[in-house]
Amino acid sequence: MRHAIRCGCLIEEKDALLPVTDRSVQYAYSVYEALKLKNGEFVHLKEHLFRLRESAKGIKIDLKYSDEEIYSWLDALKNADNLFNETFRILLIGHENLLFITHSETRKYPDSYYTEGVDCTLYEGERFLPNYKTSNLLLSYLALEDAESKGAFEALFVNRHGYITEGTRSNFYALKGNKLYTAPDSDVLLGVTRIGVMEAAKEMGIQVVYEPVYVKDVYSFDSLFISSTSMKAMSVRSINGKSVSRSMNTMVLRFSDYVGQWE
Amino acid sequence: MRHAIRCGCLIEEKDALLPVTDRSVQYAYSVYEALKLKNGEFVHLKEHLFRLRESAKGIKIDLKYSDEEIYSWLDALKNADNLFNETFRILLIGHENLLFITHSETRKYPDSYYTEGVDCTLYEGERFLPNYKTSNLLLSYLALEDAESKGAFEALFVNRHGYITEGTRSNFYALKGNKLYTAPDSDVLLGVTRIGVMEAAKEMGIQVVYEPVYVKDVYSFDSLFISSTSMKAMSVRSINGKSVSRSMNTMVLRFSDYVGQWE
Repeated sequence: MRHAIRCGCLIEEKDALLPVTDRSVQYAYSVYEALKLKNGEFVHLKEHLFRLRESAKGIKIDLKYSDEEIYSWLDALKNADNLFNETFRILLIGHENLLFITHSETRKYPDSYYTEGVDCTLYEGERFLPNYKTSNLLLSYLALEDAESKGAFEALFVNRHGYITEGTRSNFYALKGNKLYTAPDSDVLLGVTRIGVMEAAKEMGIQVVYEPVYVKDVYSFDSLFISSTSMKAMSVRSINGKSVSRSMNTMVLRFSDYVGQWE
Repeated sequence: MRHAIRCGCLIEEKDALLPVTDRSVQYAYSVYEALKLKNGEFVHLKEHLFRLRESAKGIKIDLKYSDEEIYSWLDALKNADNLFNETFRILLIGHENLLFITHSETRKYPDSYYTEGVDCTLYEGERFLPNYKTSNLLLSYLALEDAESKGAFEALFVNRHGYITEGTRSNFYALKGNKLYTAPDSDVLLGVTRIGVMEAAKEMGIQVVYEPVYVKDVYSFDSLFISSTSMKAMSVRSINGKSVSRSMNTMVLRFSDYVGQWE
């Protein structure tokens, strides 16, 4: 029997349910976090709980639970279901602070996704309140579904000015010589793994330039990659079906290694 | 005991529940409609079901139920709970077509909202896919909460170019002489009551101009009003705390009467 947490109580997962008539549910007035349990330890737990709190604040929800409380609930769920490597999802709904924790298998990707890269598509759109992980995910859903219908792995958002900001569930980077380009903090999700990528760049003596890539220039870089909690740093091999340079893929693999160890 | 409908079955309302682990629920990948039962008859049912189908199509959900099926479910719920005047909400979730119908009391407004008008605030933002009623409602939630915190009744969205498009749950109109200004169809929800307003304008010999109002010009019109299924046509008396002209309020009241009878 699988379990879940509702507002601090251990329940059966099948009872993790939302009332259709709840106004916060109807308005998708909620925020969430996804975090990994790796070898029995929660990865960057503090950073994820910090971001949950920031996301809540960003849409004017006052998160009334302490980090310690949420940590103890994660632990209770881990123990109840005897988990060792898993992904946890925390959902916080409305001013009433209805909180659920559920879990699912951590997604694993084939090695080729790193050595050979993945295919991405472009999708015009801007996430509403990009710094926060809100449940306002329709744009991401449609963009990802469009990518998958074309056999691609991820969709990258192009903003109104023609710049690539981020993926539907990843941050986006472009390497050229000794420089790493990525969109400024104001325009993207402040990915926990992105912090690791930035640390890796510093370690490797690579200069970070907080400028988004203009969509027409995307084929002129040495290498492109995306990052997320589940992907780490993953090479991009094509955009909209057209191959991109992967001449610096050794460097991308070093980013991935760094982020993997940083966990 | 209150009832609800889930995928054609009559259930208790307390069992109208959504699984937290469902991906379509997590992504708010759903559309909805709200419609009125008035003196035992559903008001503009055909138009509401047409729009539900259009909303679904707009986010690539194939609505597999026929109008006749949905109509029979509305009827079953009406009879089960012995309803005569009520508001019904239809929610359609994901490709799996999980459909719920719930009901609540129809909101009634004091006469003064019509004779003296309501206060509105301005809120910068554009609804994603404005033609469709999707559950991607965070912007509307935040805008309305902001309005209510200032004692106002409705928030009006101002787009990136500085034009007023629509309210969080209403369409917006401005009268000047013999002309009625409203944003073009592409930028707003195609309100069912808006159809009635357009018909009323034709009947009254008023020319409809499909141009949004520039925010700086909003105080220069003769009268402003908003419309929705629950509000009909409702006069605006102030925007951001500053009074607006209501010199054509008699005309606004005629719009409201027309829409009320058109039901």
